[in-house]
Amino acid sequence: MELTILGCHSATPRANARPSSQVLEMRGHLFLIDCGEGSQMALRNANVKFSRIKHIFISHLHGDHFFGLPGLISTFQLLGRETDLHIYAPKGTKEAILLLLKLGGAWSSFYIHFHELESGVSQILLDDEKVQVRTIPLKHRVYTNGFLFQEKQIERRLNVDAIQNYGVQICDYQNIKNGKDIELENGEIIPNEILSFDPIRPQSYAYCSDTLYFESLAKEIQGTRVVYHESTFLKQHNDLAVKTMHSTAFQAGLTAKNADAETLILGHYSSRYSDKKLFLNEAQEVFPNTFLSEDGKKFVFHN
Amino acid sequence: MELTILGCHSATPRANARPSSQVLEMRGHLFLIDCGEGSQMALRNANVKFSRIKHIFISHLHGDHFFGLPGLISTFQLLGRETDLHIYAPKGTKEAILLLLKLGGAWSSFYIHFHELESGVSQILLDDEKVQVRTIPLKHRVYTNGFLFQEKQIERRLNVDAIQNYGVQICDYQNIKNGKDIELENGEIIPNEILSFDPIRPQSYAYCSDTLYFESLAKEIQGTRVVYHESTFLKQHNDLAVKTMHSTAFQAGLTAKNADAETLILGHYSSRYSDKKLFLNEAQEVFPNTFLSEDGKKFVFHN
Repeated sequence: MELTILGCHSATPRANARPSSQVLEMRGHLFLIDCGEGSQMALRNANVKFSRIKHIFISHLHGDHFFGLPGLISTFQLLGRETDLHIYAPKGTKEAILLLLKLGGAWSSFYIHFHELESGVSQILLDDEKVQVRTIPLKHRVYTNGFLFQEKQIERRLNVDAIQNYGVQICDYQNIKNGKDIELENGEIIPNEILSFDPIRPQSYAYCSDTLYFESLAKEIQGTRVVYHESTFLKQHNDLAVKTMHSTAFQAGLTAKNADAETLILGHYSSRYSDKKLFLNEAQEVFPNTFLSEDGKKFVFHN
Repeated sequence: MELTILGCHSATPRANARPSSQVLEMRGHLFLIDCGEGSQMALRNANVKFSRIKHIFISHLHGDHFFGLPGLISTFQLLGRETDLHIYAPKGTKEAILLLLKLGGAWSSFYIHFHELESGVSQILLDDEKVQVRTIPLKHRVYTNGFLFQEKQIERRLNVDAIQNYGVQICDYQNIKNGKDIELENGEIIPNEILSFDPIRPQSYAYCSDTLYFESLAKEIQGTRVVYHESTFLKQHNDLAVKTMHSTAFQAGLTAKNADAETLILGHYSSRYSDKKLFLNEAQEVFPNTFLSEDGKKFVFHN
């Protein structure tokens, strides 16, 4: 699993501070998560092949998470894209995008599937043989979702030595991977755990976008291996966090800890703080394995 | 007069190629002309004070001239702007901007005057004691205007030596600047041209955005001192220029020459050409005083 941070700053884009956008590579999928202004330039910088993006997830319709989407779609058109595009975003997105395309006299060379969200409970958005993606309802000033990306359970790994010892036929390999016991020609039954190793633990990633801290969020993402959680403020400005419905770095750490996560990544920093290490230190008080996102930074997670 | 090129590339924004946007400083006004995606970052790079921008001119609603506007307006809000903003842009702009602000749950802390354009003939958009701005109707795939910015005639300059020789009273200085002859106390009438010099020639700037070449454009901007004209293609690709309703560098030069301009600035380059000098050479065949725009470049014009 690879996560590329295209932008990780809050509110207004600045000379060297891009708004929220990320690319998650998971089991061959390339998911674009949020799309603030300038995301397509950041995608170019990160050498992401545009045609590989087939699913875009927008947490909410504040400009710093959304205003790069019309331009990206226009660029897809100019590049002659033919592949379908799926957009998972709050209700209203379709009207806005189609209006902007119409005003620009643009026709779409490819089909856009708008999956508009308005539910307050978690929904499955995508479910194939490799991954499942679902919403994480959040609490912000406008309707907002995070997204939970989960790899499906992977097959058991063959114990090649054991298989050769017992003379298991090739046609049974898939059965072993699927966890089945094997009956040899002599009638002897070999338990699966002798012929295979436990599968690699699937990766999972929770994108917790703009939100007020709330305790049950940790339950919603329980056991997720990698958690991104916004940390707009430090706890010294908790009053501002509450007022603007954002979180502090400490609260991000608390959620990661209570969710039994392995890794926490912070982002969506307010521009009021010049030293980002303060966010890191504060979250590490409660959750040591915390990292700072930076525009253009790539995280690689091995199973 | 100062012109800052924020972006000068056509179509899709790329890592180091911003779409169309410019800032024109003229007699204390700071005009923003077009606003492609990422313009607000470029404004930051150019150290432009956001609050000084009171008039925004949008040539047409293709994304590379327009998609930076919603974000810029959102940023104005986040910065607590109170000053009125005037937007001169094709019909449809208001609907799009208000929809995007509504979806983001944004309220406007300042008043936005939408001056929506739909006329095919030139219109005066702004007319004060210092400058006049009017549209230049262009021919593109969607409704498009260029903009002609003209400084008003400046007062005549006092000939201090002559004034002292004739003993002209201070109360008559403004009359001299206004071009009036002066009657001395002895009844003698001194012609104005003895007491003053010709005024400095006013600056003028024509922004000729995306357009098919057409001969009468030169008449429309006749006598304009500085002309920006798009040059998406070289003449070797004239077929593409016609098909996409754009101009070649040669045609930009031709228009500047026929308009009796002093200076031509090229821009809106197609990404198919790696060497921008080719645009310069081609335009200079017909109009030698041609310059290339570059992202971030500033041109200063002295009267």
